[in-house]
Amino acid sequence: MFEQEIEVHGHLIDSMILTRIFDTIMDLNGEFTVLDFKIGKAKDEFSYARLIVKADSQEKLDSILEEVYREGASPVKIEEVMLERAEKDMTMPDDFYSTTNNRTYIYHNNRWIEVEDIMMDKCIVYDPNSDRAYCKPIRDVKMGDLIVVGEKGVKVVPPERPREGVDVFQFMSSSASSERPTIHIIRKIAKDMYNIKKKGGKIAIVAGPAAVHTGVSDAFAKLIRKGYVYCLMAGNALAVHDIEYALFGTSLGMNVNDGTLAVRGHRNHMRAINEVFKAGSIENLVKQGKLTKGIMYECIKNNVPFLLAASLRDDGPIPDVITDIVEAQKRHRELLKGVDMVLMISTMLHSIAVGNMLNANVKVVVVDINQAMVTKLLDRGTWQAIGIVSDVGAFLPILVDSIEKIENELD
Amino acid sequence: MFEQEIEVHGHLIDSMILTRIFDTIMDLNGEFTVLDFKIGKAKDEFSYARLIVKADSQEKLDSILEEVYREGASPVKIEEVMLERAEKDMTMPDDFYSTTNNRTYIYHNNRWIEVEDIMMDKCIVYDPNSDRAYCKPIRDVKMGDLIVVGEKGVKVVPPERPREGVDVFQFMSSSASSERPTIHIIRKIAKDMYNIKKKGGKIAIVAGPAAVHTGVSDAFAKLIRKGYVYCLMAGNALAVHDIEYALFGTSLGMNVNDGTLAVRGHRNHMRAINEVFKAGSIENLVKQGKLTKGIMYECIKNNVPFLLAASLRDDGPIPDVITDIVEAQKRHRELLKGVDMVLMISTMLHSIAVGNMLNANVKVVVVDINQAMVTKLLDRGTWQAIGIVSDVGAFLPILVDSIEKIENELD
Amino acid sequence: MFEQEIEVHGHLIDSMILTRIFDTIMDLNGEFTVLDFKIGKAKDEFSYARLIVKADSQEKLDSILEEVYREGASPVKIEEVMLERAEKDMTMPDDFYSTTNNRTYIYHNNRWIEVEDIMMDKCIVYDPNSDRAYCKPIRDVKMGDLIVVGEKGVKVVPPERPREGVDVFQFMSSSASSERPTIHIIRKIAKDMYNIKKKGGKIAIVAGPAAVHTGVSDAFAKLIRKGYVYCLMAGNALAVHDIEYALFGTSLGMNVNDGTLAVRGHRNHMRAINEVFKAGSIENLVKQGKLTKGIMYECIKNNVPFLLAASLRDDGPIPDVITDIVEAQKRHRELLKGVDMVLMISTMLHSIAVGNMLNANVKVVVVDINQAMVTKLLDRGTWQAIGIVSDVGAFLPILVDSIEKIENELD
Amino acid sequence: MFEQEIEVHGHLIDSMILTRIFDTIMDLNGEFTVLDFKIGKAKDEFSYARLIVKADSQEKLDSILEEVYREGASPVKIEEVMLERAEKDMTMPDDFYSTTNNRTYIYHNNRWIEVEDIMMDKCIVYDPNSDRAYCKPIRDVKMGDLIVVGEKGVKVVPPERPREGVDVFQFMSSSASSERPTIHIIRKIAKDMYNIKKKGGKIAIVAGPAAVHTGVSDAFAKLIRKGYVYCLMAGNALAVHDIEYALFGTSLGMNVNDGTLAVRGHRNHMRAINEVFKAGSIENLVKQGKLTKGIMYECIKNNVPFLLAASLRDDGPIPDVITDIVEAQKRHRELLKGVDMVLMISTMLHSIAVGNMLNANVKVVVVDINQAMVTKLLDRGTWQAIGIVSDVGAFLPILVDSIEKIENELD
Repeated sequence: MFEQEIEVHGHLIDSMILTRIFDTIMDLNGEFTVLDFKIGKAKDEFSYARLIVKADSQEKLDSILEEVYREGASPVKIEEVMLERAEKDMTMPDDFYSTTNNRTYIYHNNRWIEVEDIMMDKCIVYDPNSDRAYCKPIRDVKMGDLIVVGEKGVKVVPPERPREGVDVFQFMSSSASSERPTIHIIRKIAKDMYNIKKKGGKIAIVAGPAAVHTGVSDAFAKLIRKGYVYCLMAGNALAVHDIEYALFGTSLGMNVNDGTLAVRGHRNHMRAINEVFKAGSIENLVKQGKLTKGIMYECIKNNVPFLLAASLRDDGPIPDVITDIVEAQKRHRELLKGVDMVLMISTMLHSIAVGNMLNANVKVVVVDINQAMVTKLLDRGTWQAIGIVSDVGAFLPILVDSIEKIENELD
Repeated sequence: MFEQEIEVHGHLIDSMILTRIFDTIMDLNGEFTVLDFKIGKAKDEFSYARLIVKADSQEKLDSILEEVYREGASPVKIEEVMLERAEKDMTMPDDFYSTTNNRTYIYHNNRWIEVEDIMMDKCIVYDPNSDRAYCKPIRDVKMGDLIVVGEKGVKVVPPERPREGVDVFQFMSSSASSERPTIHIIRKIAKDMYNIKKKGGKIAIVAGPAAVHTGVSDAFAKLIRKGYVYCLMAGNALAVHDIEYALFGTSLGMNVNDGTLAVRGHRNHMRAINEVFKAGSIENLVKQGKLTKGIMYECIKNNVPFLLAASLRDDGPIPDVITDIVEAQKRHRELLKGVDMVLMISTMLHSIAVGNMLNANVKVVVVDINQAMVTKLLDRGTWQAIGIVSDVGAFLPILVDSIEKIENELD
Repeated sequence: MFEQEIEVHGHLIDSMILTRIFDTIMDLNGEFTVLDFKIGKAKDEFSYARLIVKADSQEKLDSILEEVYREGASPVKIEEVMLERAEKDMTMPDDFYSTTNNRTYIYHNNRWIEVEDIMMDKCIVYDPNSDRAYCKPIRDVKMGDLIVVGEKGVKVVPPERPREGVDVFQFMSSSASSERPTIHIIRKIAKDMYNIKKKGGKIAIVAGPAAVHTGVSDAFAKLIRKGYVYCLMAGNALAVHDIEYALFGTSLGMNVNDGTLAVRGHRNHMRAINEVFKAGSIENLVKQGKLTKGIMYECIKNNVPFLLAASLRDDGPIPDVITDIVEAQKRHRELLKGVDMVLMISTMLHSIAVGNMLNANVKVVVVDINQAMVTKLLDRGTWQAIGIVSDVGAFLPILVDSIEKIENELD
Repeated sequence: MFEQEIEVHGHLIDSMILTRIFDTIMDLNGEFTVLDFKIGKAKDEFSYARLIVKADSQEKLDSILEEVYREGASPVKIEEVMLERAEKDMTMPDDFYSTTNNRTYIYHNNRWIEVEDIMMDKCIVYDPNSDRAYCKPIRDVKMGDLIVVGEKGVKVVPPERPREGVDVFQFMSSSASSERPTIHIIRKIAKDMYNIKKKGGKIAIVAGPAAVHTGVSDAFAKLIRKGYVYCLMAGNALAVHDIEYALFGTSLGMNVNDGTLAVRGHRNHMRAINEVFKAGSIENLVKQGKLTKGIMYECIKNNVPFLLAASLRDDGPIPDVITDIVEAQKRHRELLKGVDMVLMISTMLHSIAVGNMLNANVKVVVVDINQAMVTKLLDRGTWQAIGIVSDVGAFLPILVDSIEKIENELD
């Protein structure tokens, strides 16, 4: 094990500095041991922590240290900053130190010099004539400038959180994962779903009609067939769209395969509803051999329980829909007991409803094309959640693909 | 040829009734000949049109007629409405007439009866006792109700556009195509791009950095390699992200392949910029064998001209960026002469700029994850445009796939 | 009356050219008489119209003509274009002709010259040496350039709508009203509401809980008290929020007056629900003297009928809420008969539901902070609608203020 | 002083439990002293804290305790839970304990009983027959049910943050302030601006043209006149819109006062640009007595420095605009030195640019109608920021009003 002793001062709890340092070490697969911790007794007193950071290679350790130094930690033993001359105008040495937007000091000739004009993503130039240090954009770099390289001898001081009680300013914590490309996040979710299924856990899906209208009901049906769906919660619209597509190949009258308008297609939505009324239920429609594919079909064939809760905008609603809301809530609460994860796909109403029924240990995945919807759902105090701003038409096929790849690798 | 004579009265020009009827016939691959047209001389006078609708099969003709009747046209020869009894409660006959939300009449016993309580997507019940007709939701249908079936003897009267001069209410025209699943729209665009390329036309792409960050720069590069891109317009960020990815495999410090954070990865963005400054230009970076893939690489290898226009938020900006905006505008106008289509992908600033430089005959495709951006770009008076609310990470691979399929079929 | 004879050729119906010309004349309070109209018999034949435009002042006529010329019309009698020299570099004559992005010709020396490089919002420079005309940005204007001034001798040709049947490109029509500042649109709506009330018409309001949470329930209550609300449609949440605010001064536990957290305030939401259950209904709560202000209070005091329809996410729901959706739909349809206008305020679910129950002659106002919601609601084929992307907290007070000003002026 | 000793176990740092407890105490104006703190040495070891919470009234102390107990703390001395019978069906005792969605225990008969089926905002029913406790919705409460009241004897266990290193799930921390009505947030900002000005601090404004187009340039101008704006950063469009409005009373050709279209108004945008070119600069236009009001006028009259940075979409751009971006960046960095607060109003481009130039101690206020824009700007790692999703047309007048009220009170 490679290790380094570091320390950090400040409002470590308040300003979440220690939380972020712990996070960083663990995110980068390092270990830590706390050697010393003194907590500020009152709100205006500083705290102090000293810890050993460990990693299984020097390279990994360096990478961890670099990050935690940016969060305000520093090595217990202070070293001199390293400087290297710029070889030409507008060019930095390869190993240049890249700045944060936090207050920054360099340790030069045995004393700390504050870097002036600090900004994000620039370099630091030390001026020996004035004995001052400046943050400079690349286009201002002149040949011969002494530029800070490596990570030694640089100290960063994150801002203290304003503690006035009435402050409306949010204290932003950088959230590395929020910047990940959607495709990687989906893969992680696929992995998690695979593991939950493996352990016999329960995954519920709450979905809106966009899951059919965007042309991905095949992917959705496959997810059910493969056993990843413990139960389905939806409204009348999802079922009607799914049945319209299964019976007539259209969604709101448009041929899903080629996007053309079907003959008298605008009636298909109501025809699908009429067919369910004629049969008496979706299950009867399957039994009569009329409904032979799709999301609802797979639920019935695979004994996946589904709940269709009515809402005021329903056409019909079809007989399977629970039209009394108090009854619908009761049955939702019953069915959601013990679920480990809920996928909420393109439905505001049912997602909020289900979210309110979950305890804080359930993992929640929110997928919607609309940023405001995702923000609103994540703002509700759910604890372990991830929001994906994406078309469900893109999300579901990638999710199912990813699951199949993981199965091929691991099963 | 199968044909039918129809007529229509009203504010045909004002309320766009005739435009929609022509549209509908042509959308459904029919033909028409105008037999008679009398225009209202002043704004409060009605117009009248009589035309023959033709199609190459009776089924197609029926489907066209059904739609134009919903737009307000009616057959010159009036026929009696057809009625059929409901076989049980909450069930309509299979061939039920599905209502619009426009004023509607049925022709029964040689006179027109207005349908009461008209609403969208319901059925019409004729009550012989009162000699009245009602619009009814399916759950209100009783066994034995006389329900209108087929399309004969039903007349629809679209609302007149309010002509008060000061009215803020927009007159909505239903736009069937806006409801098509994204995937079909992308296929149509692919077809159009294929045809433009075939005819020697020019397709310009305006793109923001999301095209790299979402992990689809390979699809983008392929589009260039295949010869579909006449020129590329972008900013510093697209180029820097692309070069960061090509040189280090990261985007803003994250490994694009697996979504993990690279060691000292947060420097990669600035390192990429530094590399271009060291080489002097992107072209030099390619010549030195350092840049060997990606969007910018393909542009240089395939002699696709690119313009990188500076903006205030640029890091660097790298030497290839035109930092004087007046000069940049001049070169954009020069390069855009004669383009047939522009794809605007996830960039507000450059899309608006390019949009302002286009004449009204250029086709424009706007792709953005954010509905408000798409709305804003389409609101600018551009003429032939299509907006797609989608993740560029989903759009580009599907577009390139679709193009390849078309090539395989048609080349 | 001042008048001018104009004519226009092209796909006047298809490309909506004539619709836009009629619109423009009426929007600018002019009159017109159609002198001649020949319609293209088949889809690829041109139409032709000749009309007289009239206005009550020369200035108004000029302004109308200027606009209709930009839409493709031209005076029957052709006049020479007027040219004026630029007095210095980068400066246009005051009366410069400002270009559209449509194909444009100038009539010079008895022949039409096409303007090259046409773009929006530039000027036209005629070069006597080459006898050609160019569209130029202001920074390219040189001293002495011959610049087109006034509106004479300029002809604009709008693009023809692509008529291939399979085209996904929308044909955009510029919508002047969409660019009006929100405040003016709200004033127009206030005027319309005033007129509807005056005539004994009916205005329904559909509203979500944001109407309380944004602190504007006083404005809402005033609107009811003043008699502008024929009926209120909402969900459990609006009523509960309103009652929480009226009983405890909080909304979700926060003091609405000063934004501080109330003591044990997080319970207030559930306490409000408990109070209604204890009383048995909202009306009982008013009768018992416990509920003395707010939206629900005003409804009861002023005999304004309200419908609270349940949805799956409801807390409670309180006894007044109709928990069976089929019953709720029935009562909504009943209550909505004969309404003239519906205000849909910050609620997706109830707005779609109500929208589906309206006939096409009802005016609809959609207010939401979220552009995507507004777009979605307007996309549903409702006919006379206006969408306002705004905070309800800003909309309602301005609306009530505007109504009061109109009352003071006109009553 | 009233006080209470409390303790808390768990991953206090990792899961931010202690941060939230400190926050809660300070948000509610309490005090605390840490008596003991033992940190978990490694990532899987628990931490432990014991502290005294103090407040200046028993009521305030109770309110603080109630909140911190919901965050996982508990009194050092355990007390029995209090139970009260429901007086009728569907009714809770007034003092009912309102649940969180975290794991919850009640202390009854000297032992902890876990509450089953825990959900947010319900009550807890103890069943003496089975000696079990259940979380129940109000409609399930039966007369005689034993319901937990008050806050004693209830223990909440927040979920532990998943520490697997690869997890994409965000750990949500409830953010009370994000739920405050906009109007209160604006008042807090007004207070902050007042204080900054009082102390001689610097407030910069970055604004887009919506500030003129929404009809609130008068409020903006007043803010400058009152001395609250240290410097203005904008683009060509803000200046041109402002000058168009000042010279012609229009914004993009529409009369701002009444929303009607001005005669030949579409030229006004370009005419305004032409006027500045004729004068040579905005300052000259003021000196010549042509520009007599508005945002730019006030800047010049009050010696408030402004920077107009070019962007590719500019019409003109007018002479005052810095067309070279590298030069513009340099001057922005210079002018932003030492600012205390930046208001970013309805401009993505300039806001990101300015945000990148700030150090982490600057307060940032982001105002935009578009949630996605606000989210994107706040996601950039700025530290003390508040995002407001609102129309600038609503924001600016309320802000200026609030400032004036504060001045009247405090000056």
